[in-house]
Amino acid sequence: MSNNGYLLNFWVAAVAWEAGKPLVIEEVEVAPPQANEVRVKILFTALCHTDVYFWEAKGQNPLFPRIFGHEAAGIVESVGEGVTELKPGDHVLPVFTGECKECAHCKSEESNMCDLLRINTDRGVMINDGKSRFSINGKPIYHFVGTSTFSEYTVVHVGCLAKINPLAPLDKVCVLSCGISTGLGATLNVAKPTKGSTVAVFGLGAVGLAAAEGARIAGASRIIGVDVNPSRFEEARKFGVTEFVNPKDHKKPVQEVLAELTNGGVDRSVECTGNIDAMISAFECVHDGWGVAVLVGVPHKDAVFKTHPVNILNEKTLRGTFFGNYKPRTDLPSVVEKYMNKELELDKFITHTTTFSEINKAFEYMLKGESLRCIIRMEE
Amino acid sequence: MSNNGYLLNFWVAAVAWEAGKPLVIEEVEVAPPQANEVRVKILFTALCHTDVYFWEAKGQNPLFPRIFGHEAAGIVESVGEGVTELKPGDHVLPVFTGECKECAHCKSEESNMCDLLRINTDRGVMINDGKSRFSINGKPIYHFVGTSTFSEYTVVHVGCLAKINPLAPLDKVCVLSCGISTGLGATLNVAKPTKGSTVAVFGLGAVGLAAAEGARIAGASRIIGVDVNPSRFEEARKFGVTEFVNPKDHKKPVQEVLAELTNGGVDRSVECTGNIDAMISAFECVHDGWGVAVLVGVPHKDAVFKTHPVNILNEKTLRGTFFGNYKPRTDLPSVVEKYMNKELELDKFITHTTTFSEINKAFEYMLKGESLRCIIRMEE
Ligand SMILES: NC(=O)c1ccc[n+]([C@@H]2O[C@H](COP(=O)([O-])OP(=O)(O)OC[C@H]3O[C@@H](n4cnc5c(N)ncnc54)[C@H](O)[C@@H]3O)[C@@H](O)[C@H]2O)c1
Ligand SMILES: NC(=O)c1ccc[n+]([C@@H]2O[C@H](COP(=O)([O-])OP(=O)(O)OC[C@H]3O[C@@H](n4cnc5c(N)ncnc54)[C@H](O)[C@@H]3O)[C@@H](O)[C@H]2O)c1
Ligand SMILES: [Zn+2]
Ligand SMILES: [Zn+2]
Ligand SMILES: [Zn+2]
Ligand SMILES: [Zn+2]
Repeated sequence: MSNNGYLLNFWVAAVAWEAGKPLVIEEVEVAPPQANEVRVKILFTALCHTDVYFWEAKGQNPLFPRIFGHEAAGIVESVGEGVTELKPGDHVLPVFTGECKECAHCKSEESNMCDLLRINTDRGVMINDGKSRFSINGKPIYHFVGTSTFSEYTVVHVGCLAKINPLAPLDKVCVLSCGISTGLGATLNVAKPTKGSTVAVFGLGAVGLAAAEGARIAGASRIIGVDVNPSRFEEARKFGVTEFVNPKDHKKPVQEVLAELTNGGVDRSVECTGNIDAMISAFECVHDGWGVAVLVGVPHKDAVFKTHPVNILNEKTLRGTFFGNYKPRTDLPSVVEKYMNKELELDKFITHTTTFSEINKAFEYMLKGESLRCIIRMEE
Repeated sequence: MSNNGYLLNFWVAAVAWEAGKPLVIEEVEVAPPQANEVRVKILFTALCHTDVYFWEAKGQNPLFPRIFGHEAAGIVESVGEGVTELKPGDHVLPVFTGECKECAHCKSEESNMCDLLRINTDRGVMINDGKSRFSINGKPIYHFVGTSTFSEYTVVHVGCLAKINPLAPLDKVCVLSCGISTGLGATLNVAKPTKGSTVAVFGLGAVGLAAAEGARIAGASRIIGVDVNPSRFEEARKFGVTEFVNPKDHKKPVQEVLAELTNGGVDRSVECTGNIDAMISAFECVHDGWGVAVLVGVPHKDAVFKTHPVNILNEKTLRGTFFGNYKPRTDLPSVVEKYMNKELELDKFITHTTTFSEINKAFEYMLKGESLRCIIRMEE
């Protein structure tokens, strides 16, 4: 069901009324974009584990009712005052972390953590007026990380939209809006493995497999996949993973297993699980002297990273990254081009598709560990 | 007292018989060098805090009786079988971490943690035969980190000796054998601040002030010294420190104080205290997006580094380093040249001198926080 014409600004969205309860398809009023905002027609959205964490709200602050969704592709419907870079009809990827192009982070070559538009999981409103653009009978429904793509139409700050090649198939490149760029960039932009090196990837979901894909592109000779779900192992071969370790198969900590497999430790590790024990293992498993560990997973809000400081002193490096250190507006269009040029495969990440009315299936697939990415088609 | 001629191999050393008890000047037999070993006549030695930790043995494994000392300069007396790079008369700096030139670390550009000769604080013997070269009436006295420079003569693996310019004044360049190179390299080789950046240095002992000196050389515009001993602040100006923070003057954690002073965090921090809380603060005080924290201090053996993983995810980098990432044989001669060329000042680090028979005074100065470096002259 789309805007039925008798009332403007009404569309269909999947609303999370309560933590952990199935989303409900509702008719929602989506207010027009304000200054520096853009209203986007979403065509395809996917589900990322970050949506699931905040929907479950077990280890994260609950904020409901809310419209989740942040991995998506769409077309600009209308733009608010002051928006000059986008116009109706432009193809865009909404991104959970934005780029104002004016703050110290946007001006720094090293950071993509824009002061104005960086990810904020606790804010459920637009920054322009501190209010939501979504409502049902006047009652506001909260946004999620500035994107809320589980809606036929959504309102996004212009700084959180990457304008992409209009020829790119939106049902594929939508996965570049979060997970795949995050994993790929974590390896290529942050871990930076050298040719012939050994890379461990913790968590073989879409983010981790994109990290493995990055290691393959960088010329790593051994890519060791670590996951507690053994069903991930077969599929992972397609992404360049050469060896597998299931921590549950071993009595000793997985960092020790990896050290034995690699004569002292891996050259690089990329953690894509969100599990604090995996984060610690990913750090401790890198080789002393030169190892680099990169953390990507979104942790439980009460998690504590603990290690003996000698592990750090032994000349290991620990870094964290959001969105693979890509600046969304500046860098994402070129990642889309990598797909267009066939340097990067995306189809293999898409294991399931479903319709918008059956969006809860995407949650089931992820919770069962069956899917990498499930694409949700907004138009039936 | 020197080798008195009636018996070869007898010289004077300062022996630590028990944890925390004053060293005792004793006549000690120093066996000749074995394969790949060198016997060195020590002319000057200094005291570094690492000696004090292992002598106190509060947070470290006790190993007694032992001859401490690792920051020194001397002259080769005799060489063992297979030693071709050094000959009697060569001027050398013994280093607690060696360079075999053959292992993966020595071959890597990034690491100086030689597999064979890296620091080992629990080993009190030579690696050639697993025995000590020091004895009193046939009873072995343990070595310390392969150097044991609190002795008129000591035996050192050839890989732990840097051959230096014979014109360099040994009473000055001895401090390059550990502390000053460690701090300088931590900044120049690891933290790598860019021109105009803000650097925090935790701990304004000799190591920390050398880190500050590195920041000054790199062109940092603000160098914030953090120490719990306010008597360090006046002296620190000579080393380029522009501002001071005493964590004891504030109710809030020092990382918050620094964030307020610097609009969100420093660009680089270098921790030179050995205190675990300072290590955590040094990490948490760096700016998100681009901040780099470097740990140098030797921690208590039961210390745990704890932080919320979001501090890491916010695109901060944490690294540890030994000996400022300098490779002792390859790189140290050129650090000595920096002093010879007046690029680097050393005199200002030397606040005290004493004679070998009064070596315990050097411990008192350091424990009271009065000295940066106290040079101990072996010949009265
Ligand atoms: N930093 C960012 O910018 C960013 C962006 C997107 C996603 N993420 C995070 O990345 C992580 C992965 O996302 P995804 O969508 O690929 O999720 P996913 O659920 O598809 O994959 C996670 C994988 O980790 C495995 N795993 C869980 N605990 C583990 C453990 N202790 N050891 C080894 N493997 C373990 C699971 O079995 C699963 O296969 C999530 O934490 C997500 O929130 C971060
Ligand atoms: N990694 C290496 O290669 C290496 C080499 C040499 C020395 N070290 C270590 O570096 C550290 C410094 O050595 P040093 O010889 O300069 O010692 P030092 O005692 O002269 O200086 C240490 C300074 O730290 C200060 N300090 C202690 N706790 C603090 C805290 N919580 N916050 C702020 N300041 C604090 C002290 O007041 C003192 O001024 C020691 O831990 C030493 O073992 C490491
Ligand atoms: Zn995501
Ligand atoms: Zn910005
Ligand atoms: Zn030292
Ligand atoms: Zn070596």
